[in-house]
Amino acid sequence: PNSNRDKVIIGTAAGDGIGPIIMTEAEKVLEAVLRDRLASGSLVLKPIEGFTLENRLAAGKTVPDSVMAAMSECDVLLKGPTTTPNAAMNTANIESANVYLRKSFDLFANVRPVAIPEEGIDWTFFRENTEGEYALGSKGEYITGELAVDFKVTTDEGTERIARAAYEYARANGKKRVSIVTKANIMKKTDGNFLNICREVAKEYPEIETDSWFIDIMAANLVNKDIRNNFQVFVLPNLYGDIITDEAAQIQGGVGTAGSANIGRNYAIFEAIHGSAPRMIEEGLGEYANPSSLLKAAVMMLSHVGYRDESKRLEDALEAADKELGPRMTGMAGGATCREYTELVMSRL
Amino acid sequence: PNSNRDKVIIGTAAGDGIGPIIMTEAEKVLEAVLRDRLASGSLVLKPIEGFTLENRLAAGKTVPDSVMAAMSECDVLLKGPTTTPNAAMNTANIESANVYLRKSFDLFANVRPVAIPEEGIDWTFFRENTEGEYALGSKGEYITGELAVDFKVTTDEGTERIARAAYEYARANGKKRVSIVTKANIMKKTDGNFLNICREVAKEYPEIETDSWFIDIMAANLVNKDIRNNFQVFVLPNLYGDIITDEAAQIQGGVGTAGSANIGRNYAIFEAIHGSAPRMIEEGLGEYANPSSLLKAAVMMLSHVGYRDESKRLEDALEAADKELGPRMTGMAGGATCREYTELVMSRL
Ligand SMILES: CC(C)[C@H](C(=O)O)[C@@H](O)C(=O)O
Ligand SMILES: CC(C)[C@H](C(=O)O)[C@@H](O)C(=O)O
Repeated sequence: PNSNRDKVIIGTAAGDGIGPIIMTEAEKVLEAVLRDRLASGSLVLKPIEGFTLENRLAAGKTVPDSVMAAMSECDVLLKGPTTTPNAAMNTANIESANVYLRKSFDLFANVRPVAIPEEGIDWTFFRENTEGEYALGSKGEYITGELAVDFKVTTDEGTERIARAAYEYARANGKKRVSIVTKANIMKKTDGNFLNICREVAKEYPEIETDSWFIDIMAANLVNKDIRNNFQVFVLPNLYGDIITDEAAQIQGGVGTAGSANIGRNYAIFEAIHGSAPRMIEEGLGEYANPSSLLKAAVMMLSHVGYRDESKRLEDALEAADKELGPRMTGMAGGATCREYTELVMSRL
Repeated sequence: PNSNRDKVIIGTAAGDGIGPIIMTEAEKVLEAVLRDRLASGSLVLKPIEGFTLENRLAAGKTVPDSVMAAMSECDVLLKGPTTTPNAAMNTANIESANVYLRKSFDLFANVRPVAIPEEGIDWTFFRENTEGEYALGSKGEYITGELAVDFKVTTDEGTERIARAAYEYARANGKKRVSIVTKANIMKKTDGNFLNICREVAKEYPEIETDSWFIDIMAANLVNKDIRNNFQVFVLPNLYGDIITDEAAQIQGGVGTAGSANIGRNYAIFEAIHGSAPRMIEEGLGEYANPSSLLKAAVMMLSHVGYRDESKRLEDALEAADKELGPRMTGMAGGATCREYTELVMSRL
């Protein structure tokens, strides 16, 4: 990471498909909200070039070395959506860039907030982000004609740090309850151990109530309006976090409405939760891409680097802009364009 | 299974907790709707005794031999909820009876219908029921202080038969679309192979449209009112089926509102989707247990053994009773009791 402690470096990596469109606008918003810091020289916005599918395929690497090096010089990264090539075009065995970056920078906590104020819903998900089903993703075996095997692997340390992150967050934010979500009745070793370790960590936070649920029931709980606003903080193994946060984001209004933070000890990546929407580009509808998720990620990023005022100003401006646009903010032809939206956001900063 | 081909034997196994309460009433309903067949001797209802947690713990077996033998003499089984003992009380290593029975009778297809007529939702889930994360549930390893491993295992044959079951159902019922749900981008060997095999099977059903989704997006799709009524038939590996069907049942009105069919080549078990609710018993509220899920399972069972008229009559009676009771059917003190409800159902047969 950035070795100059006096200067914060925020990298921006546009990604594929609609990525460059929404990132261009997001950069303008960041420049506006961070004007004073940029002017004083205490902060640099650093666009990372070449993080495209074409380059990744050409280099035969999920993230080319030069891109990795440029990213490493930053303190935090704002990242657009990336395309994972499908098997047919993927001779170089390019993996999901998301998964690769999470592992490379050891970003063990995937934090996703979801809120529906009218319903009293204020959820924060702590998804373990480097282990579980994702740890050995390409190391499974297919014994032709018969049997396929994949592995789920967790470590005590990996579990303890995500549990601690969830409880620390709960304590720091006055949350009353943490819910552990596993399928420990079936994945007895990995999820069983995850549940046990979370319960051990919980003992250090006696002021916080802990409950535990199986993932199937939790998927049901989130659509149960009678009880869902009782949940506050969730801690989950990787895959369950993946599933439940998409469900939760949709409950909030769409998978494209939530931001996502990937946090490690020395680095953090903030990203749009949605995909690169290649179809929108093919159909010539790229200008209608919705930058909300990326801008919500930016709100989390500003708060993470300690720019609380700016984070709050951007958050409020997003809310004001959303309110003004109402159903026009569709991410489809006929709605506001990406630029119209970000201009509205900037006018409300 | 039953070796007397002239006589159908329907077993009933009450299970634990509220199981005996709802099963006692369900048996009365079955006797009423099947009166003619029972009188003619072409059908026998056979209560299976001793399928209780106490007996299972005493025998040190998930399902005691005598219970297994009695079940094996039936053609199909109607099963109430069972309690899996937690680690503390479980010196005998009793497993989930559901999982054990599914494997023992090779009930490879878990079929769960979910419908919301007002919204045009009519979903049928085909969950692979014997493999995946459930295949080697107790064979994982925990290398103390470090690393836990669990395995996900699928076979070509196991995948092909669930795919075929889904497509055959779609064809026989005039469904236009089958959706394959995996996380093939991460579980590359097991889910990757599952997806490929489903696509191969799909080619034999050219009149049916096939699409494929990742489990996280599908969990979001089901709460997306703009698109969810486009889905019809789903085929999924074991764990994803577990998660998605609970979510779907809750969308329908509650996890206790859906029935579940476990179907194999030579045997089938129809069960309530909810748990045994020991707390209701402790609190003396057992009489308010809701038998809906078990009775919906009975509807599927009657259709499965070819009693289409009776199945339809029971289905219609359930709908009429639900309508009449409205919000009184709560499964809680203050609502109708289990007996009041089943008497209402019988009056509408
Ligand atoms: C793109 C995919 C590999 C990724 C995941 O499964 O983690 C995505 O769904 C997410 O949640 O960020
Ligand atoms: C009880 C449990 C083992 C079971 C499962 O995970 O399959 C249940 O959730 C179900 O869906 O029938």
